[in-house]
Amino acid sequence: MNNFPAIAQADASLPNYTPENTLPVDSTGKRVGSDFDSLMMRRCLELARRALGRTSPNPLVGAVVVKNGEIVGEGFHPRAGEPHAEVFALRAAGDRARGATVYVSLEPCNHYGRTPPCSEGLISAGVAKVVVGMVDPNPLVAGGGIARLRAAGVEVVVGVETEACQQLNEAFVHRILHKRPLGILKYAMTLDGKIATTSGHSAWITNQDARVEVHQLRAACDAVIVGGNTVRQDNPYLTSHQLGAHNPLRVVMSRHLNLPENARLWQTAEAPTLVLTEVGANPDFQKFLLKQGVEVVELTSLTPESATIHLYERGFCSALWECGGTLAASAIAQGAVQKILAFIAPKIIGGSHAPTPVGDLGFSTMTEALPLERVRWRVVGSDCLVEGYLPQRNQ
Amino acid sequence: MNNFPAIAQADASLPNYTPENTLPVDSTGKRVGSDFDSLMMRRCLELARRALGRTSPNPLVGAVVVKNGEIVGEGFHPRAGEPHAEVFALRAAGDRARGATVYVSLEPCNHYGRTPPCSEGLISAGVAKVVVGMVDPNPLVAGGGIARLRAAGVEVVVGVETEACQQLNEAFVHRILHKRPLGILKYAMTLDGKIATTSGHSAWITNQDARVEVHQLRAACDAVIVGGNTVRQDNPYLTSHQLGAHNPLRVVMSRHLNLPENARLWQTAEAPTLVLTEVGANPDFQKFLLKQGVEVVELTSLTPESATIHLYERGFCSALWECGGTLAASAIAQGAVQKILAFIAPKIIGGSHAPTPVGDLGFSTMTEALPLERVRWRVVGSDCLVEGYLPQRNQ
Repeated sequence: MNNFPAIAQADASLPNYTPENTLPVDSTGKRVGSDFDSLMMRRCLELARRALGRTSPNPLVGAVVVKNGEIVGEGFHPRAGEPHAEVFALRAAGDRARGATVYVSLEPCNHYGRTPPCSEGLISAGVAKVVVGMVDPNPLVAGGGIARLRAAGVEVVVGVETEACQQLNEAFVHRILHKRPLGILKYAMTLDGKIATTSGHSAWITNQDARVEVHQLRAACDAVIVGGNTVRQDNPYLTSHQLGAHNPLRVVMSRHLNLPENARLWQTAEAPTLVLTEVGANPDFQKFLLKQGVEVVELTSLTPESATIHLYERGFCSALWECGGTLAASAIAQGAVQKILAFIAPKIIGGSHAPTPVGDLGFSTMTEALPLERVRWRVVGSDCLVEGYLPQRNQ
Repeated sequence: MNNFPAIAQADASLPNYTPENTLPVDSTGKRVGSDFDSLMMRRCLELARRALGRTSPNPLVGAVVVKNGEIVGEGFHPRAGEPHAEVFALRAAGDRARGATVYVSLEPCNHYGRTPPCSEGLISAGVAKVVVGMVDPNPLVAGGGIARLRAAGVEVVVGVETEACQQLNEAFVHRILHKRPLGILKYAMTLDGKIATTSGHSAWITNQDARVEVHQLRAACDAVIVGGNTVRQDNPYLTSHQLGAHNPLRVVMSRHLNLPENARLWQTAEAPTLVLTEVGANPDFQKFLLKQGVEVVELTSLTPESATIHLYERGFCSALWECGGTLAASAIAQGAVQKILAFIAPKIIGGSHAPTPVGDLGFSTMTEALPLERVRWRVVGSDCLVEGYLPQRNQ
């Protein structure tokens, strides 16, 4: 999921080097809606974020009902299987919904799923106007909800705070369009490019502020993935370390299950763990894991790609790769990573053979390097966070 | 030399994460001088910069004579052996210097060197007031010029734009206080920490903007140092690539002189080259180098430390290390590097064994890493430039 609160709500004094247009504009660059519309849509996004990490395979959506310039109802989609944001907002507004304006960050649905279509709910509540942040990304249904509302005589405005709405549901959109979870590779390195010392020690590279940001990132993601090396070397928790926050499914990829028995990831009281392995690998260790409450899934061939397909089939929108350089390189090579989040700590550790964030990609000249797109540099405490996207072929 | 114009005069829209106080303040934080004083001192610095890279072992100094609110004379110190900035400014002002205010970025000298003391020049010109940017860093003479002026009845104000003045002469100050040139390690790496591909290819990591900045950096430095590996692998020019700009002395450190005959560094028409080696190394190649116009110096033991001492003895204020990771690590370990300038390009090249900026420092835990101080992150084109200082023990 892409809605990392601390990133999205960065201190306005900090730079954003890809100056994003935060004004509501339509595709021709013309601004859509008023300042008030923009404010209400931002409120929708705020509400939507309350369900961070919990809605997959559904999107994060918030809705606000406004009557005579006042908010008379609010809602957000809390998790798959529960009602949509509009339903909660209309319920809260009650009779006041009649003739009101409803703001919703994503186009209202127009089909019977686990819940009845929101377009019908809005029509029967008698709302006068619906302001939509972004159109449904699914090409098969895009625009259907809007068309239904208009056909029923409801005024519809589309495109208020679209960019922020798309950003919040970046992972959901990726899942819909590419039938894969959005893969985010996150690493922390020193200013001389190392993710650990030569002997493998890595605690800690970044400062507390950056580590808090990583915890928030995990809270927004469906899965966090590591390889066996990270389990053996770092013995991480991979939780979001926040009271009440969502914890991602912790995923370990290990072909041979040559893993330690005392890993913290086998403690499943706080957060669930899934071990992906290959068919028939180390049955005794599999039994041990199951006894600890760890889920084990055997795949025919364990690769970043097969792991990603498995996570897609589980309904996941996002996968956070917090692995070492070898697995990271193979995840990049197989197109399982679309986004990079690199924390850089201004310190020098040295080490000719110290591990670096990305292993072999098979490139021999610098011109083959993968240039990141939509790059943002942001200071987090004393460290820097670099955010960017791999070229489209990896998207 | 630390006065990299593009760095010092960074676009105001770009961030400076160590918010520097650019207002003139004294040691108690109280502002010294008026806005006009500040403006005039900034003009002194602008003048001083015209001699970038050419004044060592002397500092960069600019001076302005102001009469009735107007500039009536300007000057800067063009190079060692030539008159000081005040002399040029007083000459230009002529009789108008009487009763005028003189701004000068560094305390006027008070001793007979290659030129007579500036304090006497100012007194005999009859100036009423002298505004000084910073006191002479040499503890033996600091304040002498100011005291002499005051004793002669000239009003003296000290501390206008002090920080900018100190920044401009950072390398000179370092030389005076530590009897060594300021060592600056500059490198360019990918976002995954590599300075080249596994096969050693490195052209280019950064974009054109960053490379222009490196050229400006070289123009401001007295020497640029590489090891034999860089000559063999990259065959660099190491010039400032700017018409009329200063070129640093290009220094190659090579114990055995196992260097190629066709290296670009042996072309000495545009810029001089010095090869540092050990006594008796490869006499034939030494002869070859001398024939190309390359200077060769044999040291008893060739190390970053001995190289640094040699450059100090040549009167150098600054040395830019543009070497690979092995030499960089040994320069850091021997205290020959005080400042780091790291360009980071947002691209991923991969490579488990690709070279990284700093080789072995002997650290086994991450807590031993050298934390940089006074860190600034700045975007240069699409890349980021990180600037910082190694901990004081290396200063």
